[in-house]
Amino acid sequence: MAEWRADVFTLFPAMFPGPLGLSLAGEGLARGIWSLETHDIRDHGLGRHRAVDDTPAGGGAGMVMRADVVAASLDSILAPDDKRPRLMMSPRGRPLTQARVRALGMGEGAILLCGRFEGIDERLLEARDFEEVSIGDYILSGGEIAALVLLDACVRLLPGIMGKAQSGEDESFETGLLEYPHYTKPRSFEGRAIPEVLLSGDHGKIDAWRRTEAVRLTRERRPDLLKD
Amino acid sequence: MAEWRADVFTLFPAMFPGPLGLSLAGEGLARGIWSLETHDIRDHGLGRHRAVDDTPAGGGAGMVMRADVVAASLDSILAPDDKRPRLMMSPRGRPLTQARVRALGMGEGAILLCGRFEGIDERLLEARDFEEVSIGDYILSGGEIAALVLLDACVRLLPGIMGKAQSGEDESFETGLLEYPHYTKPRSFEGRAIPEVLLSGDHGKIDAWRRTEAVRLTRERRPDLLKD
Repeated sequence: MAEWRADVFTLFPAMFPGPLGLSLAGEGLARGIWSLETHDIRDHGLGRHRAVDDTPAGGGAGMVMRADVVAASLDSILAPDDKRPRLMMSPRGRPLTQARVRALGMGEGAILLCGRFEGIDERLLEARDFEEVSIGDYILSGGEIAALVLLDACVRLLPGIMGKAQSGEDESFETGLLEYPHYTKPRSFEGRAIPEVLLSGDHGKIDAWRRTEAVRLTRERRPDLLKD
Repeated sequence: MAEWRADVFTLFPAMFPGPLGLSLAGEGLARGIWSLETHDIRDHGLGRHRAVDDTPAGGGAGMVMRADVVAASLDSILAPDDKRPRLMMSPRGRPLTQARVRALGMGEGAILLCGRFEGIDERLLEARDFEEVSIGDYILSGGEIAALVLLDACVRLLPGIMGKAQSGEDESFETGLLEYPHYTKPRSFEGRAIPEVLLSGDHGKIDAWRRTEAVRLTRERRPDLLKD
């Protein structure tokens, strides 16, 4: 059994593993560092057309996924004593942060529920204890791509996925600041030089420059991060 | 030619269209409502191994994508008079918002650049006028899944993708509030009832209840949205 196990409940199982089947996440999947099981909610749909949704109580546009159908799908797979976090990808959720990603990556895995249409009947979330999590302040066509985001962010932190040299401690958010700008060869690109200090070999000066640039960028683009 | 054109520059072209090849976005792609061209940056890599990256100037972990290689890839495809926004997916960028998504969706399309490793040489972003955009405060293994997020958010708003009834004006962020909870049949689910007011047929009361719930949820989960 893989160390870190993800179960995803969706109406579009063919979207998985998708991009996570390639690159670092894909290699980790092939090597059993993590596992991904996808479950088609429609298998528990009602009637000949396997209906999963119905019109919103109180009226309004769109369709709402039925609590009973989603519950049947979850209950057919999940053991009652499964302690993994249960997350519903939703723009109404609390925003995903790198601290949360790190905590999830240190756990046993995650159970992800992907909504479509206008969302899922609120009673399902209450009865099955799902927490809504948002990847950002925009609307997607469903929870699937949001689940890919959450999984990619968690999986890259698992032991054995990245080399130790890339453990990412310098990266944006890990220091509370946006990351400083990067440069590499060639020394001159279309007349633009690498900043002198980075070629000086003086590590004290280089660290100071990077810190100053990180603060400048954060102030410019994300003053909200400096307030906290 | 499709109405809305996306060009994506990446080291992992096989990640596209990925989940965007299915469901609403996939149908829109098949019907020519939007188009997606993916370009492999490695085609312009250097030497026998088609190297695309090198060590960071000033030292440090990881590798940095070379400005000259990325520029060669971009310049081989993009016409100088291409006016579409040039966006580099990066956690250092300004956060993507639904207002930005809506503006992008009303334009001609987007040119998306996906970084890997520690990022792309800063001089490339300056010389080719790319703006960094972030989908959230967490770190991904590369820009590809972030590009899928941005494209999905934009494409669902294109005319002909969603029905008019689902134009999404009630949704989270469009009103400045998180969305109210949804309910549908059955009337009772494991002893949990749909809130009475939603079954009353009194549309004034229903609207008032939904507004109250949206404010309550926003206050509880996203007080930052109420401050602005």
